[in-house]
Amino acid sequence: MTLKVYAHRLSQPARAVIVFCKVNSIDFEEVMVDFTTGQTLSPEFKEINPMGQVPAIVDGRFRLFESHAILSYLATAFPGVPDHWYPADLFTRAKIHSILDWHHSNLRRGAMPFVINSALGPAAGPVLGGPLNPQAANEVEKILRASLSKIESLWLKGNAKFLLGNFKPSIADLSLVCEIMQLEVLDEKDRERVLGPYPKILQWIENVKSATNPHFDDVHGILHKVKARLQSRLESTKNSAFDLRMKPNSKL
Amino acid sequence: MTLKVYAHRLSQPARAVIVFCKVNSIDFEEVMVDFTTGQTLSPEFKEINPMGQVPAIVDGRFRLFESHAILSYLATAFPGVPDHWYPADLFTRAKIHSILDWHHSNLRRGAMPFVINSALGPAAGPVLGGPLNPQAANEVEKILRASLSKIESLWLKGNAKFLLGNFKPSIADLSLVCEIMQLEVLDEKDRERVLGPYPKILQWIENVKSATNPHFDDVHGILHKVKARLQSRLESTKNSAFDLRMKPNSKL
Repeated sequence: MTLKVYAHRLSQPARAVIVFCKVNSIDFEEVMVDFTTGQTLSPEFKEINPMGQVPAIVDGRFRLFESHAILSYLATAFPGVPDHWYPADLFTRAKIHSILDWHHSNLRRGAMPFVINSALGPAAGPVLGGPLNPQAANEVEKILRASLSKIESLWLKGNAKFLLGNFKPSIADLSLVCEIMQLEVLDEKDRERVLGPYPKILQWIENVKSATNPHFDDVHGILHKVKARLQSRLESTKNSAFDLRMKPNSKL
Repeated sequence: MTLKVYAHRLSQPARAVIVFCKVNSIDFEEVMVDFTTGQTLSPEFKEINPMGQVPAIVDGRFRLFESHAILSYLATAFPGVPDHWYPADLFTRAKIHSILDWHHSNLRRGAMPFVINSALGPAAGPVLGGPLNPQAANEVEKILRASLSKIESLWLKGNAKFLLGNFKPSIADLSLVCEIMQLEVLDEKDRERVLGPYPKILQWIENVKSATNPHFDDVHGILHKVKARLQSRLESTKNSAFDLRMKPNSKL
């Protein structure tokens, strides 16, 4: 039975899992679960992931959620995946775990609410697209900037192409870059204001893209569509309802 | 060279690492870094952990931070550690990663700010002990309760002694129970109000204690001392400064 990946491409951890499968030629079916309409909270989906979030996978009888856990599982379960994604070496693997753990309470805690409050609009009911909240955005921008500074100064030291000075990407590179890519939906000036001070991060994003294209750009295509819709919303009224619904690839 | 564990016993992830080392007879030196006086932000400690947090370890030339990464590293690096702590089995290990990832954005996001805002007092400068914030405590109590409900209904189903229906504890049991133990500093009524509705969680805490004692109780002794100090603060004035400083075990 083919691996099923329950995802929505607007979700940054879901994109990381999809890109990972594509780059590593893992045979999988992408099942779109539309969190923008509350489909992740349906009883059918809660059978797959009781936490009601994407991504989640079903591999035969095995069900798993949380993107970092999924990435390390896939890297181990599918023997064709090159070692650099999740190195068997004890020390390198421990450092990758450390970055991924840090990600939860730092980069994600900054980037996700920043994008929601400054561009997508916070949840109105179970659905995103409510009025923007510049004050909340300012608060979390501090966490986002502090996180970007740490990545720039600690994990991209010297001329490293990837985190930890590695020559090839790991699941930590993919996960963190997919998070930062969420800033693509911002107005160009805003994105430049936030990311501009971090030249190494900008180069690292390009390195991860090069190492995973054409899949990376394909999977991130949704962000350009969302950005275009956000622009047209801005041109009408800042507080109008915003429809994030996408055409499903496959039914739940 | 002996493993060094940089910790403070008031930190729940630091306690998890210390209990783990003691239970598994890992030879280590506990180095107290007093985050209550801002010592975690000192240049000396930032050489150990540039993120300025405990726990962190130094094992020979290898440095690592983030408690979950440390626990899985120790379980792998020290051959005497029984398999149940971090099972080699692909599927069980993936589920443990999933719980630990979930912990960051759920149980921890609820428990830590709840205890800070309802008992310890939020940071005043770099140091805890400022005026309590009942409104903030109410907000995060919702996250805490939702997290406890998920643990009770999903991972402690049936008559399981430990998470995932296991017969012996894993690093996920230890990490999550140490988090919940932070509620020990609350007034008894408050703790009962929050934890009372979850009988399986109460039993699970006892199971983890039994499996790791006398070390568990020894390492958690600090919470009783802090609770006593909090009680005397409550008897004087709710908003007086609160001194959390402890006598160091060993110097940085």
